[in-house]
Amino acid sequence: MSDSVRIVEVGPRDGLQNEKTPVGAADRIALIKALLHAGLHTIEVGAFVSPKAIPQMVNSDHVLREVNHLAGGEFHVLVPNEKGYEAARAAGAKVIAVFASASEGFSRANINCSVAESIERFKPVIARAKADRIKVRGYISCVLGCPYEGEVKPQAVVDVAQALWDLGCYEVSLGDTIGVGTPSKARHLLRAVAGHVPMAHLAMHFHDTYGQALANLYAGMEEGARVIDSAAGGLGGCPFAPGATGNVATEDVVYMLEGMGIATGVDMARLLAATNEISLLIGRPPVSRVASALNAKGRAAK
Amino acid sequence: MSDSVRIVEVGPRDGLQNEKTPVGAADRIALIKALLHAGLHTIEVGAFVSPKAIPQMVNSDHVLREVNHLAGGEFHVLVPNEKGYEAARAAGAKVIAVFASASEGFSRANINCSVAESIERFKPVIARAKADRIKVRGYISCVLGCPYEGEVKPQAVVDVAQALWDLGCYEVSLGDTIGVGTPSKARHLLRAVAGHVPMAHLAMHFHDTYGQALANLYAGMEEGARVIDSAAGGLGGCPFAPGATGNVATEDVVYMLEGMGIATGVDMARLLAATNEISLLIGRPPVSRVASALNAKGRAAK
Repeated sequence: MSDSVRIVEVGPRDGLQNEKTPVGAADRIALIKALLHAGLHTIEVGAFVSPKAIPQMVNSDHVLREVNHLAGGEFHVLVPNEKGYEAARAAGAKVIAVFASASEGFSRANINCSVAESIERFKPVIARAKADRIKVRGYISCVLGCPYEGEVKPQAVVDVAQALWDLGCYEVSLGDTIGVGTPSKARHLLRAVAGHVPMAHLAMHFHDTYGQALANLYAGMEEGARVIDSAAGGLGGCPFAPGATGNVATEDVVYMLEGMGIATGVDMARLLAATNEISLLIGRPPVSRVASALNAKGRAAK
Repeated sequence: MSDSVRIVEVGPRDGLQNEKTPVGAADRIALIKALLHAGLHTIEVGAFVSPKAIPQMVNSDHVLREVNHLAGGEFHVLVPNEKGYEAARAAGAKVIAVFASASEGFSRANINCSVAESIERFKPVIARAKADRIKVRGYISCVLGCPYEGEVKPQAVVDVAQALWDLGCYEVSLGDTIGVGTPSKARHLLRAVAGHVPMAHLAMHFHDTYGQALANLYAGMEEGARVIDSAAGGLGGCPFAPGATGNVATEDVVYMLEGMGIATGVDMARLLAATNEISLLIGRPPVSRVASALNAKGRAAK
């Protein structure tokens, strides 16, 4: 298993969007630059959503404009609808992300429509993106469990993944939004979805709420998956379990991959510095094990 | 992978021994009873070591005497030498554990003798235990890395494991003492050692310092390993990185196994209660992801 893995850093968007403390655009820009400097080349930087609904993502147009020209980076922004698409395109977006749910209950609660309706809503967005030569990434949430419905059948995930793929998404990211997955379930799901969307075009987006994320990622890699979404410092929370951890931490992922002989190109010291900086801004220590251990080592060496 | 896994709960010994705040014998007895009540049947309860060197384990004879009669439990105590063996036998020990290191540097620093000398030191202990029909478990530390020497060759682990097995240990526990292992290394090591000691007699004792423990355990299970050492609440620290996490948390292990369809017999609510109780006593919140998430859920529900 010594081939390459692509990391999609989602801290500045999926991470910060789910943190209580809002971080201003200037600090988000600094974070994105620090992450790029640390060797993370694919970074989700903002969301074109209502600032009333999600104040954490205000001024995402400014953020995107400030980083979009940086060499070596591919910057993604989340787009929920045509209005968001307009704004993203105006700000120069080259890659957008759309999101659907594998669970009807979550879809209703989160975006106030059925799964089928949400896919209908993307159709014009994806069509316009195609015409504008903007790449589209598709997220599916609740792929391994739903806070409202509990178990989610792999077939429900397959159906949505197939729809997003058929519409033209270049990659489908499978989100264990509430972190309830375990290795054999993750593996089984990837096998099922890869029967319809090529494995090379699937990403694993696992939250670490119950500490299972790295084990699930390793299980997915055993199955052949090679794209991992993660957030520096484990940024992000779980809206259904306040105080619980969010996205799997990029540091922890990098530590695992490098230990397995898979070069990530990430400079751990720079990543740790970026993680510590953003953690200061949001007023809590990083939740990642690697950051905790390396920071403790650093203090002990003083 | 739906067969059974045996969990060896090491919180009351390996966990508490490495916590700064000492916990009195009465509270350790209460913890052991709570863990047994939660469904953990194999529990390491104390160490017959110098109370000057390790004050956390003082009165282990009293602890053992108070729990040894409890139905359904198998209680282990650590024994470093013949003097400790005498005391353990006098207190009624039925299972003792001895420890060696796979690394010369760690052996020198930790028990002030070479690896070969440490094995010589065990010989009379194991011989007497055999005569007294007391079972002996062998620990090997630093199997995936050493704080002094860095990389540890699998062959070094194989040699020590073979020696402990030949001397009559019924089980050899492979300790990633500083938690630096990653899944492919863990798997490779287990394969190497299982060439000399049957896999059914190998235990995985992985620390979670860098968040890798569950992934490593899953990788080891893929290789066929079926015994897991863990500590309630992730008790224990890493003496070489103060502030970093210690043993993999029993809650996190149980969550993974149950999610994979492997019944553990552990009642999560009771385990969580035991974890929260001991965490209060040592004055810090549990570090396990599962405890954090479930406690946050509990607070949110109030």
